[in-house]
Amino acid sequence: MARDGSVVPADPQAMVVAKKKTQSARSWILFDATGQGSILDVDKYAIMHRVQINARDLRILDPFLSYPSTILGREKAIVLNLEHIKAIITAEEVLLRDPTDEHVVPVVEELQRRLPKQGDGKEYLGGQNDNEAAEEDESPFEFRALEVALEAICSFLAARTTELEMAAYPALDELTSKISSRNLDRVRKLKSAMTRLTARVQKVRDELEQLLDDDDDMADLYLSRKAGSASPVSGSGHANWFAASPTGGSKISRASRASIATMRLDENDVEELEMLLEAYFMQIDGTLNKLTTLREYIDDTEDYINIQLDNHRNQLIQLELFLSSGTVCLSFYSLVTAIFGMNIPYTWNDDHSYMFKWVVILGGVFSAIMFLMITLFALKKGLVGT
Amino acid sequence: MARDGSVVPADPQAMVVAKKKTQSARSWILFDATGQGSILDVDKYAIMHRVQINARDLRILDPFLSYPSTILGREKAIVLNLEHIKAIITAEEVLLRDPTDEHVVPVVEELQRRLPKQGDGKEYLGGQNDNEAAEEDESPFEFRALEVALEAICSFLAARTTELEMAAYPALDELTSKISSRNLDRVRKLKSAMTRLTARVQKVRDELEQLLDDDDDMADLYLSRKAGSASPVSGSGHANWFAASPTGGSKISRASRASIATMRLDENDVEELEMLLEAYFMQIDGTLNKLTTLREYIDDTEDYINIQLDNHRNQLIQLELFLSSGTVCLSFYSLVTAIFGMNIPYTWNDDHSYMFKWVVILGGVFSAIMFLMITLFALKKGLVGT
Amino acid sequence: MARDGSVVPADPQAMVVAKKKTQSARSWILFDATGQGSILDVDKYAIMHRVQINARDLRILDPFLSYPSTILGREKAIVLNLEHIKAIITAEEVLLRDPTDEHVVPVVEELQRRLPKQGDGKEYLGGQNDNEAAEEDESPFEFRALEVALEAICSFLAARTTELEMAAYPALDELTSKISSRNLDRVRKLKSAMTRLTARVQKVRDELEQLLDDDDDMADLYLSRKAGSASPVSGSGHANWFAASPTGGSKISRASRASIATMRLDENDVEELEMLLEAYFMQIDGTLNKLTTLREYIDDTEDYINIQLDNHRNQLIQLELFLSSGTVCLSFYSLVTAIFGMNIPYTWNDDHSYMFKWVVILGGVFSAIMFLMITLFALKKGLVGT
Amino acid sequence: MARDGSVVPADPQAMVVAKKKTQSARSWILFDATGQGSILDVDKYAIMHRVQINARDLRILDPFLSYPSTILGREKAIVLNLEHIKAIITAEEVLLRDPTDEHVVPVVEELQRRLPKQGDGKEYLGGQNDNEAAEEDESPFEFRALEVALEAICSFLAARTTELEMAAYPALDELTSKISSRNLDRVRKLKSAMTRLTARVQKVRDELEQLLDDDDDMADLYLSRKAGSASPVSGSGHANWFAASPTGGSKISRASRASIATMRLDENDVEELEMLLEAYFMQIDGTLNKLTTLREYIDDTEDYINIQLDNHRNQLIQLELFLSSGTVCLSFYSLVTAIFGMNIPYTWNDDHSYMFKWVVILGGVFSAIMFLMITLFALKKGLVGT
Amino acid sequence: MARDGSVVPADPQAMVVAKKKTQSARSWILFDATGQGSILDVDKYAIMHRVQINARDLRILDPFLSYPSTILGREKAIVLNLEHIKAIITAEEVLLRDPTDEHVVPVVEELQRRLPKQGDGKEYLGGQNDNEAAEEDESPFEFRALEVALEAICSFLAARTTELEMAAYPALDELTSKISSRNLDRVRKLKSAMTRLTARVQKVRDELEQLLDDDDDMADLYLSRKAGSASPVSGSGHANWFAASPTGGSKISRASRASIATMRLDENDVEELEMLLEAYFMQIDGTLNKLTTLREYIDDTEDYINIQLDNHRNQLIQLELFLSSGTVCLSFYSLVTAIFGMNIPYTWNDDHSYMFKWVVILGGVFSAIMFLMITLFALKKGLVGT
Repeated sequence: MARDGSVVPADPQAMVVAKKKTQSARSWILFDATGQGSILDVDKYAIMHRVQINARDLRILDPFLSYPSTILGREKAIVLNLEHIKAIITAEEVLLRDPTDEHVVPVVEELQRRLPKQGDGKEYLGGQNDNEAAEEDESPFEFRALEVALEAICSFLAARTTELEMAAYPALDELTSKISSRNLDRVRKLKSAMTRLTARVQKVRDELEQLLDDDDDMADLYLSRKAGSASPVSGSGHANWFAASPTGGSKISRASRASIATMRLDENDVEELEMLLEAYFMQIDGTLNKLTTLREYIDDTEDYINIQLDNHRNQLIQLELFLSSGTVCLSFYSLVTAIFGMNIPYTWNDDHSYMFKWVVILGGVFSAIMFLMITLFALKKGLVGT
Repeated sequence: MARDGSVVPADPQAMVVAKKKTQSARSWILFDATGQGSILDVDKYAIMHRVQINARDLRILDPFLSYPSTILGREKAIVLNLEHIKAIITAEEVLLRDPTDEHVVPVVEELQRRLPKQGDGKEYLGGQNDNEAAEEDESPFEFRALEVALEAICSFLAARTTELEMAAYPALDELTSKISSRNLDRVRKLKSAMTRLTARVQKVRDELEQLLDDDDDMADLYLSRKAGSASPVSGSGHANWFAASPTGGSKISRASRASIATMRLDENDVEELEMLLEAYFMQIDGTLNKLTTLREYIDDTEDYINIQLDNHRNQLIQLELFLSSGTVCLSFYSLVTAIFGMNIPYTWNDDHSYMFKWVVILGGVFSAIMFLMITLFALKKGLVGT
Repeated sequence: MARDGSVVPADPQAMVVAKKKTQSARSWILFDATGQGSILDVDKYAIMHRVQINARDLRILDPFLSYPSTILGREKAIVLNLEHIKAIITAEEVLLRDPTDEHVVPVVEELQRRLPKQGDGKEYLGGQNDNEAAEEDESPFEFRALEVALEAICSFLAARTTELEMAAYPALDELTSKISSRNLDRVRKLKSAMTRLTARVQKVRDELEQLLDDDDDMADLYLSRKAGSASPVSGSGHANWFAASPTGGSKISRASRASIATMRLDENDVEELEMLLEAYFMQIDGTLNKLTTLREYIDDTEDYINIQLDNHRNQLIQLELFLSSGTVCLSFYSLVTAIFGMNIPYTWNDDHSYMFKWVVILGGVFSAIMFLMITLFALKKGLVGT
Repeated sequence: MARDGSVVPADPQAMVVAKKKTQSARSWILFDATGQGSILDVDKYAIMHRVQINARDLRILDPFLSYPSTILGREKAIVLNLEHIKAIITAEEVLLRDPTDEHVVPVVEELQRRLPKQGDGKEYLGGQNDNEAAEEDESPFEFRALEVALEAICSFLAARTTELEMAAYPALDELTSKISSRNLDRVRKLKSAMTRLTARVQKVRDELEQLLDDDDDMADLYLSRKAGSASPVSGSGHANWFAASPTGGSKISRASRASIATMRLDENDVEELEMLLEAYFMQIDGTLNKLTTLREYIDDTEDYINIQLDNHRNQLIQLELFLSSGTVCLSFYSLVTAIFGMNIPYTWNDDHSYMFKWVVILGGVFSAIMFLMITLFALKKGLVGT
Repeated sequence: MARDGSVVPADPQAMVVAKKKTQSARSWILFDATGQGSILDVDKYAIMHRVQINARDLRILDPFLSYPSTILGREKAIVLNLEHIKAIITAEEVLLRDPTDEHVVPVVEELQRRLPKQGDGKEYLGGQNDNEAAEEDESPFEFRALEVALEAICSFLAARTTELEMAAYPALDELTSKISSRNLDRVRKLKSAMTRLTARVQKVRDELEQLLDDDDDMADLYLSRKAGSASPVSGSGHANWFAASPTGGSKISRASRASIATMRLDENDVEELEMLLEAYFMQIDGTLNKLTTLREYIDDTEDYINIQLDNHRNQLIQLELFLSSGTVCLSFYSLVTAIFGMNIPYTWNDDHSYMFKWVVILGGVFSAIMFLMITLFALKKGLVGT
């Protein structure tokens, strides 16, 4: 089972299984609006009750079951399952699973810094964007949490991709210059790691694209707005049945709903979220592009190696052909001498010393002609090149 | 015809054919709203009449004809054909075909446990979700039945996938370390099994995705609501012709129907079903991802093996080239000695004992030089590596 | 030009060309509402006038021109071009081309049995669906004709697929066990036949899917309804310009027309047709699945054979390497003896009988060591396996 | 640069470049409504002014720039760039570029025959459709011109495809029976020609499909209607801004515009154009199908040849193995005799004549056993078949 | 790391990294409406403030981060990231990054010439479009800037493609005629360069297509119109909430918004922009087609080379087989003579001179028969061809 490169975590599932041995599957960390994190060790019913999601949605975050990456908008919560970042975001708090996982620790820190509304903890990105703080202050709590998660996952996948590139390009160039079992095996493992990483990046990218393509799914993520608008709308007349919709999770599903959108436009203004998602979509798309380029580079290298090996072999066989021709001619010459080496008495045994010269000369000349003819035949047929 | 791996049922059709020998094709089990199951041995006209579907739809469940996986919403029934689970669900009862099939038996048991509305029989999932019982109680009968079927098929396919992975990864690693006919054949069979399994998983996944993408198809599955709303609506004025729609099966078909959706939104609220389907869609999508990763792993391994074999061959031929060079040089040396071994009398036969040394030494030196030259030529041409 | 398997008609075009030699291209058979068939030998202008289609549409049915499979709804007729079944269906009669073609004859018989509205001739499907007769009686004439055609083409393609599977799986298994030119050629022909058959099945499937995806295209096929509704509607006010649409063939084309659909829903209720098409779509989809599985099986087998052949070759070369090693060592030994076989007088010729033993023993030992060293070198380098 | 088959014009661009040498790039022919053609040698500003298109659109027809095939509806003109047919169609005249090009000459003749409205010149298609003349008389000028262009390009591409098929199938069958460099090179060139032809056919097909999928794009091509309706509509009230649309080129672009379509349905009745385009779409789709089938046939043949070559090689090596075995055994026998041929005196030299027999017999038997053992080993290992 | 062809810039990222060493990352050039360019060396907050975009959008233009090509419409600016052209366009000024980059310099010059509204600087395209000047005068400032950028990027990519074609076709033809490591490596690098170039062209093309497919995204780019209409609209009643949309960046996102489009058609008339984008879309599509054709040509050539190499090898092995046959027969003959060369006394040694003749003749004849038999066997088995 030595199929895992050392560069990229071998197999998400396997990793998860290993992790489960060492820690409780129920450990959660809870962040409130002030960015204070507190460990939560409750059972799943407490969580379901707290964030008002049902058992089916909670199961998505179960590290034992390997669900694909997902961002789900529910009535009062966003259920987030992005690789190792498994979180539930409500309008007022964030629940993050497995806060002690080594990949999750940075997310925890980032959340603590950026969740509070005040700008005091906001010098992320190297302390150089003090001005930014002002304008980003306005985004609602749930988007600040969502952005931290997206940034973490995008950076994580980008870092994995860069690591893979760092390992793959030299390995491929080495393989091109020297085809050995060791190099081949190394490239195979890198390719396998790349395939798995591509699937993961693709999954996150698809999830973001799907969200971006549907205004209503995006509107479902505006938890604060939904919480605020739930009551006042119910007074108006014909907008009554529309009010049910934004509070109803994915009530109106993925199918196109053009006309609805027109009527509650004021409510469903998803510009802010769209711009947020677009930025990370572009980043993850760039990561996917890199992986695609890497894959094509690997494929091209493999094609090249195949032709190279075939060509090498043909040249080896051409040389062997020359040697075979030599062997045949020498064998012929040897045969002639062997005939004269037989111990059967014959007339020339008696003092025909000119014989010896003739046998040696004629045998040699004939062998040489034979060799030349074979070579010329091969040349004429185009079998051996210049 | 030994093309079936032992891991996954070789060929669904073949299996079905074999099964048909041993049991009646007409055996059905009927569950009512209390979860009581009773064997039903009636002909197809009785069934068609009972659930009000037509012959064409019933034919889909015919195990003799191998229809692909389907979930069809009809006027008063859901026709379900998911692999071995062939069922008709109405608002009040479930008809399940072939209840004695070994893969269907768990479905039968699960239905008996979960169909009754009361929470007394609801400690499924290991008795640990007593609280869940309360909130899930409200879902209508047809969805409880549908969920059992979806859960059964998803688990079944996930189990088959895991079995396949368990068999495939070691087999591939073994093949990598030792390429033998036996290992090759084993991988070939696993690959073939994987291809078939992927097609089946894909089919179920596509069916779920298609349902999720069309609100109206989902609305068609709300049998209880349709049954309830059929009469009262007919009083209202301009909503009259809409009332016909939900009772008309797939009357308004797959094409986009944006504007309609806006008007009967209250009626077509498909949130509950969507969340149910989404969960199983994600599970089957995860299964498909696993199979896709497996396929890519197999493909990568095959590429690797091909290059490995080619490289191995080149190395074999390089060694053979050395041996051929040796043969040619030894042949040349032999030829020289053979010349002096001829029984033709010559002058040196008479007491030139220094001759012998010179012939042996010069022959040996010349042969060695010849061997070195061939080797150097090959090295310079890059034919043999370091 | 021996590229056609015997299993599936080699090349539709070629077949058609051959057919044209033996029969008139203008022979049609006409069925009226009572199922009575009468041979029609008129020119194309008579037909164009009779069914009110234009020349361009009639050309689609020309067996000389190989148009792909199509179902076209025109103002007063359905133009049907499904492989060999080339027909024009109006609300009252069916025109079928080439009724003497061996593949068309069953269609002719089926039409005669099922077109009449009365249940007396309806015991198709083995006489066991007397009850069905009642409920299917109501479907309009053009759908009864359409169903016969679809059933015929689906069964035809399914039969071809089954034939191909019957031939292909054993051929592939035979090829796996013994790779010979004959088996290879056989598989190549089967693969080629499969490619052509897949294209044809795909074409029919795509045509059905496209119809199912557009309610208006389906509504265009309700010839009876269009014929009936043409006059009364013209009285109503704002529905006036809608009335033009159903009578106008594919006036409103494939682009989405959401809003229109909402208003003439009562008129465009396509449930019946959709259920009819869905059933055959599923059947042809199943056929396509089988072909896809077959193709993947063939591809996998080819990959397997390639690796198998490569592996076999390497083993052959390994054995040859051993033989070459043997040859070199024996050559060396021979050389030694040949040296002592030279007829140049030397001292040991005089009574050193112990010499002989030493030469033989040392030569043999040295040769054996040489052979062992070559073998060990190859083993150490991993060139020859266990 | 000998990569072009003789069957299909090697490289469109290259051809165009060559053409430009010999003729003016500005030569146009102008047809008016009576079908009279007159050579026009004006600069591009005169043309832009005449047909009221802008420079950007005219550039599409520039033979120097190789734009892909396009049909563009502009305010008062259709800009047509279909391979060699580069034309501008207005409601009253047709401008055709490069009328002296050998492929364009038939289009010129066809336009002269079919553009006049009267039926006197209408006996195209072999003079047998006198009746057709009457009904087709009604189509507007721009569609008559468009149909001539589409028919010409479809026939042209179909003819190229047929030529290619005529050349390719025999070449492939020949290659299958004899793999030679000459045959390989021929197939390579045909494949390359096919790839280019497929791209061109695909381009035309896609352009037609895109037109068919958008009613508004089709409506833009109704130049006569637009010219007629421009004035009267402007009186009506709220339809005012709709009137701007049809006269505004592709004002309302490709995005779906469902609701608009509903309101100006009377105006945008595109049935006639749709039926015209559908017919040629089907023809070009059939051509594409043929090319696809050809490509798959070529691919299958290549796979077959690869396996065939590999299999052939293995058989060659098997035979060589036998010969190598023979060589080893004969070498062994020779060695034995060589030992006894040494000129070292030994006891048996003295009158042991039975020795000779034993050496010969035992040597022969031992060699034969050695040969048999090698053969049996290879048979047992499955290296050499029956 | 020698994986870069000399034809196309090896690796965009690598290039960028190298560039960053030599120049400030913050250098911008600013063009106002008169085409005057002035170097701007401010930090990013000044820029964000000047053009009113947020930090996230500015980050897209960061040359350190390799975002894919993008055209984003924001409230008051178009953010343009097309390969090396990174610009922000507002209704009155253009900001261009890295004006000293060698690929950007032509863009700078072109902007200076074409941005001023007066026709005096408009003799681009070789001074021959004086008439064009008049009609293009009317396009708003932001479109003039956008067109310069699109033209530059399309020409740039087309030039790169042509360079690549110039290098690739001869290299492929050379490789076909002589397969050497050097040629193989050259083709590999060209293929790798092509893969990267294709990805870049595809990205630009996709971005244009996506814009063309969504009228609202296009409407967002009408900066001047938005700037003008922002105030007057706010007076009207129910159109109030629509007015918010065009000023709100991508407020209404990619999902279909059919109904909205109908209402603000007068405002969203995107004909001018669509025609502009269409022209460049067609150009970049033509470039992509060329690259696709090149890729298929490379793939076909590789297939050809593979078969060619395989065939060559088989012919080499056939010749070797002949030589092996010769060796075996000569060995046999030698063995016979060696037997008679043993120094064991036997009867014929005594004066049987006829023996010698018989041995020589029979040995020769037997060897020749042996050779013929092997050859015939190979011929009969089809192993060696004519």
